[in-house]
Amino acid sequence: MRIDTYFTTAEVDPQALATSVVVVIDVIRATTTMTEALANGARAIYPTASTEDAVRLAQSFGREDTLLCGERKGVKIEGFDLGNSPREFTAEAVRGKRLVMSTTNGTRALVAGAEGERLLVCAFTNLGAVAGALAGCGAVAILCAGKEDEFSIEDALCAGALISRIRDAADEPPRMNDASRAAMVLAESLQPDRAVLADTAAAGVLSEIGLADDLEICADVDRHGIVPEMKDQAITATVERKS
Amino acid sequence: MRIDTYFTTAEVDPQALATSVVVVIDVIRATTTMTEALANGARAIYPTASTEDAVRLAQSFGREDTLLCGERKGVKIEGFDLGNSPREFTAEAVRGKRLVMSTTNGTRALVAGAEGERLLVCAFTNLGAVAGALAGCGAVAILCAGKEDEFSIEDALCAGALISRIRDAADEPPRMNDASRAAMVLAESLQPDRAVLADTAAAGVLSEIGLADDLEICADVDRHGIVPEMKDQAITATVERKS
Repeated sequence: MRIDTYFTTAEVDPQALATSVVVVIDVIRATTTMTEALANGARAIYPTASTEDAVRLAQSFGREDTLLCGERKGVKIEGFDLGNSPREFTAEAVRGKRLVMSTTNGTRALVAGAEGERLLVCAFTNLGAVAGALAGCGAVAILCAGKEDEFSIEDALCAGALISRIRDAADEPPRMNDASRAAMVLAESLQPDRAVLADTAAAGVLSEIGLADDLEICADVDRHGIVPEMKDQAITATVERKS
Repeated sequence: MRIDTYFTTAEVDPQALATSVVVVIDVIRATTTMTEALANGARAIYPTASTEDAVRLAQSFGREDTLLCGERKGVKIEGFDLGNSPREFTAEAVRGKRLVMSTTNGTRALVAGAEGERLLVCAFTNLGAVAGALAGCGAVAILCAGKEDEFSIEDALCAGALISRIRDAADEPPRMNDASRAAMVLAESLQPDRAVLADTAAAGVLSEIGLADDLEICADVDRHGIVPEMKDQAITATVERKS
């Protein structure tokens, strides 16, 4: 197996993606929130690039079983049903609903990742399930959302933890690019607990807007056993045995 | 002090650079080679973006005390005096000469870094000297050249080693972005010896063209006590006490 990691979407070579299973990671908070929503019974998530696209799409679905979700600068968009805080996406709020979701960095990574053979969504909360789904793949491309095209340590750490799980379950050690190697070194040195996540630029922003408690869920490794996958603009979940 | 690291030139915010001392790192091999050349008595190095610019500039200087240096895909450019191998830049070859130099990734990082308050050139070979020169700065931006806009582990490792030296000498712990923090974790886990450098994408390319022995110099920490600095398109050296 070959595993290439990209710390920002700017680094991605679209040609390399075309023959890979792409894994998008945005720990704080888009992929954590998506995993939470699908684990709690949301039917599907439709990521959009802009607020306007989100409103248009939600209207086309009909509003009775559709929720408008999203943030700008971390805060819920005015007039939307939900923001981007995983704590909002309870079973009570989302079961049976379609979610149209607009987030800053996560959506950009999903758009870049759509060039891949398949596109999976990963966070610490579904790490083992995604690792299990990747077993036996020929080529994996891990695409970290980062923060406005800058490196994010929590996404790199999650990438490294995912690679460690894959390697431990594989018959042969995977071939890796420099970023995959660096991500593994990070994951060997730093545990993804709340304290480590709190010491990141993304958590600094959350803390300023009073949402630091979101980190509790973001750091909850293997909280869920699902693999969200995007097909035809919609992300839905399949249940996977944890590895 | 604030220390921000950028793993690729694509991540750089030019506004943030304007008030920082910028440090450009391209361990394999541009900044190692520049440091070697200046330590061995070259008068000045003139980096250029293209081969054509290099030839034009060398002609304008007059060819008797000017050397044309540079590589494409690691190999010396046809008709040039020297390539980009630090082993070529001996005192015998470069003493008293002006060097016009065109390299792939290193030059791009120098162009991006030119927005800074000052621009220093760093490699493992002059790590302590650069750390000494940065003592007391308000803001430092470390710009890793990377490899064609992708993350390079050896540049990140060198950035982390530089930050560790600065922190150890500082009265107060520096404030850092996520990439600076990750670089420090890397530098605490990996030693910059030849074996670690050999396990990088850049070294793979060197090995293919028979230049793997260049890594010996690239990994020779504190081989020189000089700080190359770029002013008005020319890089010259000042001698600095190692820290």
